[in-house]
Parts: sequence; C-alpha cells; structure tokens
Amino acid sequence: MQTELSKRLGVEHAIFGFTPFPAVAAAISRAGGFGVLGAVRYTAPDDLKRDLDWVEAHVDGKPYGLDVVMPAKKVEGVSEADVEAMIPDGHRQFVQDTLAKYGVPELAEGEASGWRITGWMEQVARGQLDVAFDYPIKLLANALGSPPADVVARAHEQNALVAALAGSARHAVKHKEGGIDIVVAQGYEAGGHTGEIASMVLTPEVVDAVDPLPVLAAGGIGSGQQAAAALALGAQGVWLGSLWLTCTEADVSSPAVTRKLLAAGSGDTVRSRALTGKPARQLRTEWTDAWDDPAGPGTLPMPLQGLLVAEALTRIQKYEVEPLLGTPVGQIVGRMTSERSVQAVFDDLTRGFEEAVDRINRIAGRSGT
Amino acid sequence: MQTELSKRLGVEHAIFGFTPFPAVAAAISRAGGFGVLGAVRYTAPDDLKRDLDWVEAHVDGKPYGLDVVMPAKKVEGVSEADVEAMIPDGHRQFVQDTLAKYGVPELAEGEASGWRITGWMEQVARGQLDVAFDYPIKLLANALGSPPADVVARAHEQNALVAALAGSARHAVKHKEGGIDIVVAQGYEAGGHTGEIASMVLTPEVVDAVDPLPVLAAGGIGSGQQAAAALALGAQGVWLGSLWLTCTEADVSSPAVTRKLLAAGSGDTVRSRALTGKPARQLRTEWTDAWDDPAGPGTLPMPLQGLLVAEALTRIQKYEVEPLLGTPVGQIVGRMTSERSVQAVFDDLTRGFEEAVDRINRIAGRSGT
Repeated sequence: MQTELSKRLGVEHAIFGFTPFPAVAAAISRAGGFGVLGAVRYTAPDDLKRDLDWVEAHVDGKPYGLDVVMPAKKVEGVSEADVEAMIPDGHRQFVQDTLAKYGVPELAEGEASGWRITGWMEQVARGQLDVAFDYPIKLLANALGSPPADVVARAHEQNALVAALAGSARHAVKHKEGGIDIVVAQGYEAGGHTGEIASMVLTPEVVDAVDPLPVLAAGGIGSGQQAAAALALGAQGVWLGSLWLTCTEADVSSPAVTRKLLAAGSGDTVRSRALTGKPARQLRTEWTDAWDDPAGPGTLPMPLQGLLVAEALTRIQKYEVEPLLGTPVGQIVGRMTSERSVQAVFDDLTRGFEEAVDRINRIAGRSGT
Repeated sequence: MQTELSKRLGVEHAIFGFTPFPAVAAAISRAGGFGVLGAVRYTAPDDLKRDLDWVEAHVDGKPYGLDVVMPAKKVEGVSEADVEAMIPDGHRQFVQDTLAKYGVPELAEGEASGWRITGWMEQVARGQLDVAFDYPIKLLANALGSPPADVVARAHEQNALVAALAGSARHAVKHKEGGIDIVVAQGYEAGGHTGEIASMVLTPEVVDAVDPLPVLAAGGIGSGQQAAAALALGAQGVWLGSLWLTCTEADVSSPAVTRKLLAAGSGDTVRSRALTGKPARQLRTEWTDAWDDPAGPGTLPMPLQGLLVAEALTRIQKYEVEPLLGTPVGQIVGRMTSERSVQAVFDDLTRGFEEAVDRINRIAGRSGT
C-alpha cells in the first residue's frame, strides 16, 4: 500500500496510526506503518521525554510522529483559575448530583484529576514541542486547527511534515493556506472531535479542495477493505485511531473500558459535547445521555466543559462505574471484537486491502486477477 | 462495472438509480444502469400506468424496477380522517404561524395538496403493485422495511427480485429473514430516511450480516471514485438517488429547488424529522430549523407529521418561498453543481470508476496499470 506520501516518509504501507500509547505507536511503525503518538496527556515535559525515549528505543529506526493539540489563536494571560471561575454553579451541581445518583466514590485526599485543561493550552503544547524536536520526528500533526506559523516553520526546519485535521473542505483550505503539508480529513463516523460530513463525501471533497496537498482519510476505517475505499476516494493514506484501542499493547484506563469497547456495536457511539464542549464521538453512556438530555443544564463551551467534568471522569474511570464509563471511539468500534496485537491488526489490514483490490479488479473486468 | 448481481439483472454497470421521474429512470436503464421508479407519489393507479407505459416505450428493452413504500405491519381500518384527528391544535397553529411569518399565500379554492398520506399506506402500495406487475419489472424495492411475505412471493412469481432498504445490520438481517433478495444499505449521508451509521462503516457490516445476499451501497455516492469505494467495501452495486435530481431529464417541483440544489454544499443538509416524523436528510432551510428548534413544538411521529405539513409544503413549493423551500437530498449535493443529462452523469460515473481502479492498482503495486 504505497503512495507518494508513504514513499516520501519512507514507510512500507500508507497506514497512519494515531494513539496515546507509546507501545502502540512503536508497534505500528515497526509493522511498516507510521505511528503517531498523541501528546495531549503529557502535561509534564519529562513524561513526554521518557515516553519518546521509549519509542525511540523500540521503533527499530522506523519513522514516527507526534500529535499535539495546539490552538491557532493564542489566548494571552488566561489561567486555569480564570477558566474555572467561568463555570456556573448549576453545572457544578449537576455534576455532583449525577455522580451521587450513581454512588461514584470521591478521590482520595490530594489525588489529582487525570485530565487537566492545561494540556489543551498553547504554552503546554509548545513545551511538548520543545521536547519533541530533540527527537527525529517525521510528522507533527495538530488536532485542533492549523498550527501557528512559527511552529510550521520550526517543524520544516527539523525535516518534519506538518498535518492538520479538518472536518470540512473549508477548514482544509484554511490549513493549506497556513502552510501545512498534509490534511487529515476526519469524517463524521470518526472517534473524537468530528464534523457532520461522512468520510465517503468528505474525503474526495477535501482531496479536490487542497490539491496537490496529500490527504489522509480518517473516520470509519478499521479494515483493509475500508482502507482500499479511502484510497479509491483519492486519499494518499489512511489515519486510524480507534482500532488500536483494543490492541494488547494499548494501556487503556481500565479493563472495564476494554470490555465495553469489545462489546459495543457501530450504533453504540454518540457525537456529544459532554467531553469537551465540542461534538466528539464516544461510547454512548448514561453520562453522555445526562448531558444530552434537554431536561438537563446542557454542556458548556470548550474549554469550560472539559474542566468541569475532568475530576468526575477520573472518578468514573478509577472506580469503573460501568453505566457512566465511556471513551472517545468511532463507529468502527463495532469491528473491534477481540484483543489482538498491533501486528495482527496490521496483517489483517494489509491482507484485506489486497483482497479488496482483487475484488475491484474483477468488477472492473481487469485481467490478471 | 460488473458484479454477479448486475449480470443476473442483465445490466452493463452495477449502478442502480432511484428516481421519482420516469424520464430519468428510463435514461438510467438506457445508459446501461438499472433505473428504479419511485411509486410513492402515484396515489392514482392510472397515473402510475401512464408513466410505466412511458418508461416501457423509452427504455429500449432494458430492465428497470419499481420502488414502493409499504409498511410490513398492516394498520387495519384507519382512515386518513382518523389520522388527521390525532394532530394537536398547537401543531396546526405552529404551521399556520410559520407560513404567515413568511407570507406564504394560500392555495386556490379546491386546489389539492400535492402530497397525501395515502401514498404511504399499504392499500395504496398494493394498488401500485397491481398496476406494476402488468409490466416486466425486474426489481421491486421497498423503502420502509421488509415487504409483506405475500408481496415477496408475488414478485418472485413475476420473476422480479425484491430489495429492501436498511440503515443497520440488524434491520438488514430482518429483511433477509423476510425472504428478500437484495439489501440496500443506506448510510447516514444519504438523502431521505437514514440511520446514524455512515456508509463507510455500514456497507461492510451489512455485507457480512446478510451474506450471501447481495448488498447495494446507498449514501454518499455521486462519483465513480465513490462507486469504486462502495464496491471495495463489498457491495455488489451502488444505489444513487440524489445525483439525478439536477439532471436535465428531472421534473423537479420548481426551478427554485434546482437552484438551491446546485448552490448547496455538503454541509447544507440536515437529518430532520420535519418532513415525515422520522429522520430524513434534506436541504436545511428555515422550515427545518423551525421544526428542529427546541423552542418550537417539535415534530409529530410518522405518519402524523407528513399529514400535518402536506398542504404547507405544497404552498411553499408552489409559491417558491425560498427560505422555506427544501427537498430530500444527501450530502452528495455538494457535488451537484451543474445541470447535466443522465447520460453525461453516467459517463462521468463509469470514467471515474476506471480512474479509481487505476489508482488503487498503482497503490497496490499491481502490474499492467
């Protein structure tokens, strides 16, 4: 599965795997794809350094990348406390009431919430980059709009390509104007933040809009057949995130999350603002239902919602409160029915791709197949 | 573009075109595809007979089919008046207020609403079938669940295959159990009634669920590249509806609708209950916004909503009240940017398919391309 982009990056297959787990990222690159480590959870630079050291030691010299969450617009002089102060009391009460209804225990004294708003703020992302550029990363992806111009320039100096996610052709064109190298077209069916337009429509629209920039298709891809479909739509590669969550190398927050992922069907996700304040696809739970219920207070805008629910989500995860326990994941979750190694998943992708090519050639009446 | 199913039906390309317009259906079959005439608007059997005569005379002996809307469950002894009586006054008032706000003129005395609930009732669909089975139709599709067993048996006696639309693997399996021959997997991005699951995920899921029944992919398909993608996903053909709406042969209700379709982007549709009471993708308008507004009365369940808004929609169409004027259409509307003949659209589909096959072979490193 070779495109101009995969050749340029020196990988065997045009399969890009986004993951928050170093062991998964390294295994994807070792398998012949391109592993991209999500940096958003690294609020301490030393933690990122430790994990990049690990990746570097386990990647067998293969290329890999980093995904940051960096807003294009700088918010000057706003602290986490300033943001905290903007949250209405009624919303705080709703969180407490919902947790109480399900008997969710409190964290121990001094125990920190696992998720901090700071991971989403520019200065933290810049700290991550200061660490990351000491490593030979070949791709810097930004999950939240175009990265700032100086970051793009710095990446290019370091010989890294820059990618940005887009849910519409309009956003993709803005990214192109920002000087990036690759657009990740993220369809409605994808896990995490998504727009309304499905991959089947979005991918070729973005390909046309940013030509000649290469486009990676994201959303709904969990098999080689789906990869073949995305490439037929004009993508130069596929960007997979959800599929790795049930890999044996993944360090998912709790066994209960893994169980829920393995049991979920394609109809068991919802695009909800409950997690961050922007629509993000995730497992549908009684927690997302509570936020999406018109009878409730509704969600707050980003970044308030994320800050509001951070401690609650940590408690729900820690105590594995099943009805409330969720995770971002795409509609492809219906295909994630067993725990397998990254290599086994990868072999399945490349085999399925070849089968799809055989099939399409038979349909086209092409000889030699 | 030849699959087992296209061979079985004796068509050159596995492209199925659903359309309410006889001229479009005939042109699709003449071009080498399979035209399927939507019957729902024919409440008078003689009108359907007239149009099937026309198709028969203009199809050059090529095969074609009929699409009906036939509920699997029979509702005995319920008249249109009974259904009318179930509509709350507040909803009627909301319709009148919204029309008044936009200054929509009344219909002339005795002028009929163009849309009747009866087209959606089983006895009417059975009347349509009594007419249709006098013609050599090769496919009977049902847009609303599995057709009743006796209808399936009658179609089979008449040498017609039976297809049913499904928005989930679970519904598809129910259709299979009902003895049908073909499942149309209708993705989230499709025009008209759709579920939540996008084509990229839905198509292979339905293919696996109903194996060995053939599956047609619907939703998001408006180019040969998208057709190739759907076939790579395991479909035995593609089912296109929206794309024909801006064909020169289409007899769309008003020039203003055509203008709006040509101008709309992929993000300008909405999945709304405003039309029928079930979620159906259509152009987003101030009419759909009014129904989807939490401050309004909300929509009624099917079939009440359709009956409630029938006269209003006729008035909006007749007087071309632009802000309120919409039509069912899929996200592919963004690709419908010029009026072209069915043949030109068809040529574009088959050419794009061949290009996509070339592309996928290059990526797979297959020789001879």
